[in-house]
Amino acid sequence: MNISYPSRQKELQKLVEKLGLPDRNRVNWQLLDLALTHPTASTQANYEQLEFIGDAVVRLAASELLFETYPGSSVGEFAAIRSLLVSDRTLAQIADSYGFGRYLIVSSSAACDKAGEESRLADAFEAVLAALYLSTNTLQLIRPWLDPHFQPRAAQILSDPARQNYKAALQEWTQGQYKILPEYNVKETGRVHGGEERFTAEVWLRGDLLGEGKGRSIKAAEQAAAQAAFNKLKINN
Amino acid sequence: MNISYPSRQKELQKLVEKLGLPDRNRVNWQLLDLALTHPTASTQANYEQLEFIGDAVVRLAASELLFETYPGSSVGEFAAIRSLLVSDRTLAQIADSYGFGRYLIVSSSAACDKAGEESRLADAFEAVLAALYLSTNTLQLIRPWLDPHFQPRAAQILSDPARQNYKAALQEWTQGQYKILPEYNVKETGRVHGGEERFTAEVWLRGDLLGEGKGRSIKAAEQAAAQAAFNKLKINN
Repeated sequence: MNISYPSRQKELQKLVEKLGLPDRNRVNWQLLDLALTHPTASTQANYEQLEFIGDAVVRLAASELLFETYPGSSVGEFAAIRSLLVSDRTLAQIADSYGFGRYLIVSSSAACDKAGEESRLADAFEAVLAALYLSTNTLQLIRPWLDPHFQPRAAQILSDPARQNYKAALQEWTQGQYKILPEYNVKETGRVHGGEERFTAEVWLRGDLLGEGKGRSIKAAEQAAAQAAFNKLKINN
Repeated sequence: MNISYPSRQKELQKLVEKLGLPDRNRVNWQLLDLALTHPTASTQANYEQLEFIGDAVVRLAASELLFETYPGSSVGEFAAIRSLLVSDRTLAQIADSYGFGRYLIVSSSAACDKAGEESRLADAFEAVLAALYLSTNTLQLIRPWLDPHFQPRAAQILSDPARQNYKAALQEWTQGQYKILPEYNVKETGRVHGGEERFTAEVWLRGDLLGEGKGRSIKAAEQAAAQAAFNKLKINN
């Protein structure tokens, strides 16, 4: 335990307790400290390099889980599930469930950037996974607590015919039925940067409004509109 | 050692000897057998799932190596180097250096598909990495022999101002100098599918022929032409 500030050491120990790590003595505290230091807090010693490794670590953890849990699934299904499991959105959700935001050292300006919060949490989460991986050179300090987050999500994605990519699913359907693509109209309808209702999207097909949705990004609003359309079309079929 | 055919077991042992694995007794031979079985040889038991895991394993191995070897490099440099290290081209080269083609079970029709050889070798290589990773749940059976392949390549990429992406480097240069993009003309100049001289590309800038190159794909020919142009422009500068 070589962290320079005793209070920081205590904070990190709290986080590790929350994760319920099986063998706390093997944690490399210096790396964990680094993993929870945002580039705005230190341009030299921050989580960037660990995040780079963590990106590979989380892909490996997700791959192993899928291989063990769904031996009969196709690789295409694996790829679809993995890309959602390792997405910023999922990783930020898991990080948030442990209150990672409390442990991440950032500059005060970055802390107020709500729009960047998701990617900040996801990046720090990947960096923490790298720190834990490098502590033992195995996934032993990771899978015991990460698997229970991934498992229900993987099951949900597998049971969803659109694989949670409603734009792609809707496009496939309209091309199959009519050989045309749906059209999206997006408007800025909120003023809060990063607010859930910032953008509103409509999706149209051959002059019909199929669905409408809101989101914090253009992409998210389009996905929400496509999901509404997808659900409506299923009902009408 | 549970492989059904004794001759196959012997073959695989030879490959493992070639790799110079530090602890041969820990190899999971059934997984290694699977890793070297192409989907055309068995639609049920083949390397596809292992390749999916291996993709994450090789990214992790490359990331760790870069983190340890170039602690002062930026994450952007790490990303550029890693994407080349884990490319089909690099992995197929390494696989070929051990004669992986000899150990890979494929259908005879696939075996004659020269154009698919590179991706076949790269896929099998990733699958073998997964089999070795899953044998110990560490990179212990991988890094001792893979690092020496990655190290000189990483050093070469770092010392190359174009980072081996000459099209991107040339484009950056022409945009910086003249605010225009170079133009490529590609012709099919060979008849051998997958032959090194199948396509010939020219790259032009403001009416001047900057360079010419050949390759087995349109992309490869364009890269070769861009590399010729890049080298020529450096001389003229």
